[in-house]
Amino acid sequence: MACSQYEYVKKFETYQTLLPNTYIVVRIDGKGFTKFTANHNFEKPNDKRGLDLMNKAAESVMETFNEIMLAYGQSDEFSFVFKKDAELYQRRTEKIVSCVVSCFTAAYAMHFSDYFNIKPSFLPMFDARAVCYPDFKNLRDYLNWRQVDCHINNLYNTCFWTMVQKGNMTPQKAQEILKDTLSDRKNEILFNDYGINYAKLEPQFRKGSTLIRVLVLKDKHANKEAEQAESQQKREKCEENQGLNKEGALQQQNEEGEEQKENAEELLKEESDSVMTKGEKKYIAGQKKQKKLNSKQLEKIEKSKYRSKIITLSDDIIQNEFWDKYKDSLKLQE
Amino acid sequence: MACSQYEYVKKFETYQTLLPNTYIVVRIDGKGFTKFTANHNFEKPNDKRGLDLMNKAAESVMETFNEIMLAYGQSDEFSFVFKKDAELYQRRTEKIVSCVVSCFTAAYAMHFSDYFNIKPSFLPMFDARAVCYPDFKNLRDYLNWRQVDCHINNLYNTCFWTMVQKGNMTPQKAQEILKDTLSDRKNEILFNDYGINYAKLEPQFRKGSTLIRVLVLKDKHANKEAEQAESQQKREKCEENQGLNKEGALQQQNEEGEEQKENAEELLKEESDSVMTKGEKKYIAGQKKQKKLNSKQLEKIEKSKYRSKIITLSDDIIQNEFWDKYKDSLKLQE
Amino acid sequence: MACSQYEYVKKFETYQTLLPNTYIVVRIDGKGFTKFTANHNFEKPNDKRGLDLMNKAAESVMETFNEIMLAYGQSDEFSFVFKKDAELYQRRTEKIVSCVVSCFTAAYAMHFSDYFNIKPSFLPMFDARAVCYPDFKNLRDYLNWRQVDCHINNLYNTCFWTMVQKGNMTPQKAQEILKDTLSDRKNEILFNDYGINYAKLEPQFRKGSTLIRVLVLKDKHANKEAEQAESQQKREKCEENQGLNKEGALQQQNEEGEEQKENAEELLKEESDSVMTKGEKKYIAGQKKQKKLNSKQLEKIEKSKYRSKIITLSDDIIQNEFWDKYKDSLKLQE
Amino acid sequence: MACSQYEYVKKFETYQTLLPNTYIVVRIDGKGFTKFTANHNFEKPNDKRGLDLMNKAAESVMETFNEIMLAYGQSDEFSFVFKKDAELYQRRTEKIVSCVVSCFTAAYAMHFSDYFNIKPSFLPMFDARAVCYPDFKNLRDYLNWRQVDCHINNLYNTCFWTMVQKGNMTPQKAQEILKDTLSDRKNEILFNDYGINYAKLEPQFRKGSTLIRVLVLKDKHANKEAEQAESQQKREKCEENQGLNKEGALQQQNEEGEEQKENAEELLKEESDSVMTKGEKKYIAGQKKQKKLNSKQLEKIEKSKYRSKIITLSDDIIQNEFWDKYKDSLKLQE
Repeated sequence: MACSQYEYVKKFETYQTLLPNTYIVVRIDGKGFTKFTANHNFEKPNDKRGLDLMNKAAESVMETFNEIMLAYGQSDEFSFVFKKDAELYQRRTEKIVSCVVSCFTAAYAMHFSDYFNIKPSFLPMFDARAVCYPDFKNLRDYLNWRQVDCHINNLYNTCFWTMVQKGNMTPQKAQEILKDTLSDRKNEILFNDYGINYAKLEPQFRKGSTLIRVLVLKDKHANKEAEQAESQQKREKCEENQGLNKEGALQQQNEEGEEQKENAEELLKEESDSVMTKGEKKYIAGQKKQKKLNSKQLEKIEKSKYRSKIITLSDDIIQNEFWDKYKDSLKLQE
Repeated sequence: MACSQYEYVKKFETYQTLLPNTYIVVRIDGKGFTKFTANHNFEKPNDKRGLDLMNKAAESVMETFNEIMLAYGQSDEFSFVFKKDAELYQRRTEKIVSCVVSCFTAAYAMHFSDYFNIKPSFLPMFDARAVCYPDFKNLRDYLNWRQVDCHINNLYNTCFWTMVQKGNMTPQKAQEILKDTLSDRKNEILFNDYGINYAKLEPQFRKGSTLIRVLVLKDKHANKEAEQAESQQKREKCEENQGLNKEGALQQQNEEGEEQKENAEELLKEESDSVMTKGEKKYIAGQKKQKKLNSKQLEKIEKSKYRSKIITLSDDIIQNEFWDKYKDSLKLQE
Repeated sequence: MACSQYEYVKKFETYQTLLPNTYIVVRIDGKGFTKFTANHNFEKPNDKRGLDLMNKAAESVMETFNEIMLAYGQSDEFSFVFKKDAELYQRRTEKIVSCVVSCFTAAYAMHFSDYFNIKPSFLPMFDARAVCYPDFKNLRDYLNWRQVDCHINNLYNTCFWTMVQKGNMTPQKAQEILKDTLSDRKNEILFNDYGINYAKLEPQFRKGSTLIRVLVLKDKHANKEAEQAESQQKREKCEENQGLNKEGALQQQNEEGEEQKENAEELLKEESDSVMTKGEKKYIAGQKKQKKLNSKQLEKIEKSKYRSKIITLSDDIIQNEFWDKYKDSLKLQE
Repeated sequence: MACSQYEYVKKFETYQTLLPNTYIVVRIDGKGFTKFTANHNFEKPNDKRGLDLMNKAAESVMETFNEIMLAYGQSDEFSFVFKKDAELYQRRTEKIVSCVVSCFTAAYAMHFSDYFNIKPSFLPMFDARAVCYPDFKNLRDYLNWRQVDCHINNLYNTCFWTMVQKGNMTPQKAQEILKDTLSDRKNEILFNDYGINYAKLEPQFRKGSTLIRVLVLKDKHANKEAEQAESQQKREKCEENQGLNKEGALQQQNEEGEEQKENAEELLKEESDSVMTKGEKKYIAGQKKQKKLNSKQLEKIEKSKYRSKIITLSDDIIQNEFWDKYKDSLKLQE
């Protein structure tokens, strides 16, 4: 049977491509998640299981698409940043958008029961879009926009649900009180009325999650894992203290915070030395050496000692500190 | 914290829309399914569980998006046809594509274990694209293209795997023999060497699956289900005999087939009368009556007696018969 | 010199195409024409020289792009309708848009002095866009939209400028009086205060200009031209009387008009018979004959007797009459 | 008459926008210029009148669109570079493309007779496209691509037409000899067989034309013009000697050239001092001063002494020299 008489319909397919030499950001966003979270009794204002499941799904996406350099997630959304020279599907918009969202959804659906101990009672669904950002400043501003959004929403939701859950207010009453308040006021309400220091709440809730790839030494793999788990715990404890306690303060640490931050930095430094940066330092040193020897073979040998690993952080990504720290891992092509 | 300094990044988002008054076809397609099917030991050349799972996922998509009038699937692909006046997400390309593929993937992932009794060992993933077809002829030709593709691939694969599985040939040997053969020759090989009448194989394998919505009477719901299940079985038996045994024969039935087809048609007629078309006939009769009375209220009452139901068929959708039969159900707006 | 190191920049070029099997409408629109017309002392509310120049430029476009089936212009805009199966530049949007507007602009600039006896004192400039319409109804509605727009604007402008020029009103005063009036009222003002029967004004002003291609006999070329010029004049005279004298009346002829229309139709019939339709009738008859003879050669001979000619009309294109009359010329592919 | 029933057709219009924060390049290109130039007896291989007319039209475009920072033209094409933060028509692709090409065409058509002393015998027509380049390197590489193209084509054409016109060869013979020759060989043919030093030919032919905006002092306007004209002539004479006489040599000056280049640079320096750079230096000095005074008013006064002027150069734009020299004029936003 001649297929040819029908094949003309292929001419109706067109495809758009994403401008080369720009950062591609694919943002996925939960569809109908108000209903989905209500239906599955997600805790309010944040359900750690739900957020960890989002992170797990994001990790699956990063494992699948190795040109993603960073992912940032909060609430029911996740942004995946492809490096500027990504060539995935010849940068075809629909291909990239559909595959990323399909991968994320599959992971979310399949791992749901690992986090909630039940099968989901209806289908989780996400939309997705792709946006290009021409330079690093644009990309940073995009991520800032999302992290500020996380902060604003989380502070509001924390107040709202505290007032409802602990203050026994009606949702209407809580909404009315919070209407048009600045974040200073929200922090005050939390602290004065409920004894909650917002800045000390879980960083994951306040700052969202950032996933990046780092290099770790292969041979020390097993005990590194343990080491990392430990230092991760330490870090999380410390990071609690580095948090923001005022809106507008993401760029400004309070004094107490500063102090705690120093402790945190020591620990982080330690952690970096033992877990990631040691590897990276060696790698970089190796690279310099290689340049002298001008030997691809040497590089291969050196590289083979390391493996890429995706880590999940709750850092402030608005400040330069994060970007300086992970500069090499992100292989930034400013 | 002023979000406004970062919000300019929203201006980088653009969106494409799909031309109004055209049929939107969203086709999803398995990514890496060669590996996925091998890994999960799908039967060759067709795994009924796998195809039924595809149909189940497609049904979920149709339940979610009520502007889809028809879905056609074969192998690891599915095409969803939105009616011409669909308004979903203001016809924004990325929104439609991402939500459809996300919904399909979620359903596929979640129902996998219902069909395979295991959890999938890695993530099922699909890409998706949207294409517009301006008129009904273009749409029919698109669907013809996919069903012809199904026929060609399935005949080849049936031969190939029969030669390998029953003929104990090496894949290379089978490939060599089949190379450049016409479908007549493939039918001969199957019939002469292995006693297989291709036209009598499972219609689902030979023709793919078509999902449409029909109206069924509400009050007779329970026993209709049973009735339908029965008549469906009858039909499937019969349809085996209507199949093609020659390439080029999708439009041409062999004599034996013709005879059997008549039987099939009787049964189908019977089935139609009892299962769907009775409802539809009444509905149509009702509609005519309504026109006379020119009463919206009456229409509502009449409509409330019926409910929409998605059915899965293995029909030849190239011929006019299918389209004539389901004309009213498809509410074709030619 | 190796060009190759720079050629990668070609990858940044993308192109959009216009959906196949749809009518492509390219609409050009004057940029800064308020200033341009003021600067060159265009007559108000309509400058026949200016409109004829627009028509001349549109004719040049139709001569250049033979897939344009119809052009409709009014004020400083012109819409070019490409037939559904047009293949111009593989239907690439930017190519089509830029070439059409460039051709139109070149013709407008070069012929300006033929109509105004001076060189333009600054550059005429037009923008352009391409829109796809999937079916004939959409196309008709698009053209209706433009012709209704012409009617509404022209009735308003005629009132306004009459009040200013003949009534010696200030523009502010005139604007104030006309504000929120319906067209009935505008017709009354013109008739009662200034003795002007709007329906008898120049059809070109009231209805815009429509350009189509017709077939004319080659051998009778010379005298046909004369004949046509004459009958064109007759027709224009008559059409004055067919015009609208009420807003809302484009679909409704007044009685007097009806009578005159009959005369007009006789003349038109005559004209058709002698100028176009005779040719077309013969051509069609010839075509039928050819089908019997099944001879491409005969068709060629027959065709060679005719030549395509672009004619400019001031018809009502909202009603079916126009479309019925020129059905064959437009080779409508509904 | 209700327009509303037709206005739904507006929904079929969509528009694409060009990514913010990227350089927009609109390239126009002659359509059918082989025929157009033949028909109007353009001189071969280069017609200075034709190229000057292209430059004149490009200047009109730059005068019309003040966000164009640079234009580069050669043969029958011209590229217009909009600065990164251009906001023209909200960066809508079709609007920008159509208006630029319309403006260019109008200027070309209207000024044709100024350069050729006749009216064009048929319509000049150009197509246009818009491309985005995210960073300065991409933009430079784009322009390099065009200037290398100019060089390659012009060297070939110069050889070809010299062989035909002075060597009395048939076009076929000339083509055959030139086939697959490197540029060294082409330079040799010109020099050995025809006594032509390619590097000394008109820079406009070898390097194309670059238009930029510079600031000039208002009060010295009249005599500046004269001064510039003079120094321009001097420069052109000198630049002949800086040219390339080898393919691959756009980056490499021969020794003789170097010497002459030094002279040229002295003259250029002189010219810069007297014509542009003096103004710019003062302007920059003024700017620095202003910053100290932090006074917008002072800036205004200072600025009012200068006016922007479009100048046409035949520079090598591949090397950094050009970009360093005009850095301030181009207000580069790397």
